[in-house]
Amino acid sequence: MVQYTSTPDQLSLTFAALADPTRRQILSTLKSGEVSVKELAEPFSMSLPAITKHLKVLEKAGLISRGKEAQWRPARLEVGPLIEVATWVDKYREFWEKSFDRLEEYLLELQKKEKEKD
Amino acid sequence: MVQYTSTPDQLSLTFAALADPTRRQILSTLKSGEVSVKELAEPFSMSLPAITKHLKVLEKAGLISRGKEAQWRPARLEVGPLIEVATWVDKYREFWEKSFDRLEEYLLELQKKEKEKD
Repeated sequence: MVQYTSTPDQLSLTFAALADPTRRQILSTLKSGEVSVKELAEPFSMSLPAITKHLKVLEKAGLISRGKEAQWRPARLEVGPLIEVATWVDKYREFWEKSFDRLEEYLLELQKKEKEKD
Repeated sequence: MVQYTSTPDQLSLTFAALADPTRRQILSTLKSGEVSVKELAEPFSMSLPAITKHLKVLEKAGLISRGKEAQWRPARLEVGPLIEVATWVDKYREFWEKSFDRLEEYLLELQKKEKEKD
């Protein structure tokens, strides 16, 4: 288990790392266990260096760790920063539960937009 | 695997907007209701234009909306993107709960071994 110490800058680093669909897809893939860079690159039309660059951002944010094997270096999901995100957003749960009527409006609007897309 | 239904770019926009401690502080302030730019600027040693710039990022991400009053333009927290963040991070809850279970098993195993030594 990784030791995760929280500072405000750490949360900014985490959110910045999550602000990219490829990086979020990588994290989602890692939910099932350790994966090599080559395997991670497969679903994307991306070069290994491009994937490696994304992995470095995720690693810097503490969202993943990398194995030591020189060739393979499997990536592994780390829970600390994700728990920090959940803890942060939980502070707003009471707020949105209060504004449930507005939420309902928002979801109806979203559904309408989705239907308009079809 | 759970498929994410909302557009990935919206979530990226949200995470990017959250990747700044001043912007997160602004959102926290807005939990109690509508606040003017002037009031929002007070706790920070920041100029009104600097705060306005942060508000624009939050508004673009849909995290806040602004009133129409030309002079006052109060900012209001919007729950939609926050719920999207909560929904996204919830998909990892099972993963970290499993991690904790494994840790607990490991610690119990360790305790057992320690007792056997006595």
